[in-house]
Amino acid sequence: MAAMVVKERKILVAVDESEESMYALSWCLKNVVSENSKDTLVLLYAKPLRSAYTALDGTGYLFSSDIVVTMERHNNEMADCVMAKAKKISMISTSLSAIVGGQVAAVEMRVENGDARDVICCVAQKLVPDVLVMGSHGYGLIRRAFLGSVSYHCAQNVKCPVLVVKRPKSSRNN
Amino acid sequence: MAAMVVKERKILVAVDESEESMYALSWCLKNVVSENSKDTLVLLYAKPLRSAYTALDGTGYLFSSDIVVTMERHNNEMADCVMAKAKKISMISTSLSAIVGGQVAAVEMRVENGDARDVICCVAQKLVPDVLVMGSHGYGLIRRAFLGSVSYHCAQNVKCPVLVVKRPKSSRNN
Repeated sequence: MAAMVVKERKILVAVDESEESMYALSWCLKNVVSENSKDTLVLLYAKPLRSAYTALDGTGYLFSSDIVVTMERHNNEMADCVMAKAKKISMISTSLSAIVGGQVAAVEMRVENGDARDVICCVAQKLVPDVLVMGSHGYGLIRRAFLGSVSYHCAQNVKCPVLVVKRPKSSRNN
Repeated sequence: MAAMVVKERKILVAVDESEESMYALSWCLKNVVSENSKDTLVLLYAKPLRSAYTALDGTGYLFSSDIVVTMERHNNEMADCVMAKAKKISMISTSLSAIVGGQVAAVEMRVENGDARDVICCVAQKLVPDVLVMGSHGYGLIRRAFLGSVSYHCAQNVKCPVLVVKRPKSSRNN
């Protein structure tokens, strides 16, 4: 019998605070990261820039420095929370993979400052991953209306294959 | 050691006459269909409707019946050619999979009449696949300008995860 081909891929997963992105991560771990792989999973979170909320009023005077500091702290806590959740999902999956005889994929975490669309495209350009995985509808109706679909923007601009995972309605009540 | 989990998924791959779609199929076979799977691969080709070219002139008089018959024959030959090529790629991959100890995925082929966007969305709705795989830029600049991106339309409208595979520039001279 021929030797088993071990895949060594770099899989970039964009995560955020939404359930959709965590579902996308789980789906990827179950369906793309296989037992006979030695994949590196890069979890990427885009933390909003401070200027994104100081510029909201146009004058820069609407938010006091206290509020800006509070927002900054909130954003840092959100980043920690998202990454901890994503890491936990990845670890559970890779442990299961090890149990069934597979090789555990390496997990790397990156938090970058900026708009999600720019951050994801920029990191994808630098890392040249084998595939970029994203959730769908992870950014709220109002943000999407102003900013456009993050997944569409990335699918248009990155050079690697893009997997957009929608969370089925049946799992939304869980 | 725990028993190996065998994935039994339905993977819908939209194919057309472009190299991009064949690349997407190959990428999917290599990266999504794993050795320990028992996946059903559904290859889908959308054959243009006769009305799509008789309606081009608005009057219905531009093309003689001979030309329409010739176009119809050309479309049928194109469908056969695309499906034969896609089947060959799938068979080579599944044979390799069998050699390394995996289970061979079943391959089904579907040719449906209609606009690619409608056909793909409609079949995805009926089959409820685990994932829809598509190539990017498979429909030519002019058609995209008129019809919009097929992959974007499908990503917006189907409910399952969508994998859009771009053919890297380095493989375009092969």
